[in-house]
Amino acid sequence: MQAAALKLYAAPPEPMNRQDYRDAMSRLAAAVNVVTTDGPCGRAGFTATAVCSVSDDPPTLLVCLNRSASAHAAVVGNGNLCVNLLSAEQSDVSNLFGGKTPMAERFTADRWSISPNGSPVLAGAALAFDCRITQVTSVATHDVLFCEVLGVTLAEQANALLYFDRSYHPLPVSL
Amino acid sequence: MQAAALKLYAAPPEPMNRQDYRDAMSRLAAAVNVVTTDGPCGRAGFTATAVCSVSDDPPTLLVCLNRSASAHAAVVGNGNLCVNLLSAEQSDVSNLFGGKTPMAERFTADRWSISPNGSPVLAGAALAFDCRITQVTSVATHDVLFCEVLGVTLAEQANALLYFDRSYHPLPVSL
Repeated sequence: MQAAALKLYAAPPEPMNRQDYRDAMSRLAAAVNVVTTDGPCGRAGFTATAVCSVSDDPPTLLVCLNRSASAHAAVVGNGNLCVNLLSAEQSDVSNLFGGKTPMAERFTADRWSISPNGSPVLAGAALAFDCRITQVTSVATHDVLFCEVLGVTLAEQANALLYFDRSYHPLPVSL
Repeated sequence: MQAAALKLYAAPPEPMNRQDYRDAMSRLAAAVNVVTTDGPCGRAGFTATAVCSVSDDPPTLLVCLNRSASAHAAVVGNGNLCVNLLSAEQSDVSNLFGGKTPMAERFTADRWSISPNGSPVLAGAALAFDCRITQVTSVATHDVLFCEVLGVTLAEQANALLYFDRSYHPLPVSL
């Protein structure tokens, strides 16, 4: 039997209700990343699920960042960033970089190194994409940062951390 | 003990090797979507994991699409699309829309309806974001389609389909 479907629309062509949109988006599973930067405009980092691959020619990914975020000026000003893909046991790092903790304190709880391009690399992350920002597009409240990937630091066999339905899930799940 | 980390870099500031990049990106878990369109430029659809939320004010998401993809002209020409988030049992639909099957045949294997904004909605999908394209940014080989979300059709309690480490995973996993 087909389950009933719920339709959430305002009066077209108006956009839909914002809370309904957030509720629906909570069903789009995504990997959890901490995006970091360091340089003349300061050290900063934030938790992000809005990260995806754009192209492999050249290797390019994107990161969405709210223009009002505390990390925005440093990330855009430095022009370099590292996407640290969290491993399954790093949900505490996600909470730390997704909350209201002052920027300097966020970097004291874990071990970090510096990538060849100058961004902080989180010890124990599943992998770290070392990037330079090549293009920025403003869309609604956010800047979309397009980044060329200069290199990757890859852990051996790290499980990934997933966010889905407003909670964390490890991947792959041991069955 | 900290597992050994592997560093994959070309000579900076050169971008990294493309195959290394694809291998690394296979560890970034992502929900699987079939993105569809219909209108004066034809009916078309393609499988996409490069989909994420951009803003909730107004509700806006993005979809990355290779400019050489067979669906490109129809999607960009029509200016409307639907992001069908696949449910756990729909990996066959992902394979169908991610392969070389002629466009018309892709729509014959499943049941479809038409959204208020004119795009095909897949029966049994976990949810369907009904969108109009508001902005297109070209980056490397791809167009990034920014889309205002007009409404959502939401299934009741559908499990989601995840792609990670080059294989499908259902979410949430029954433990």
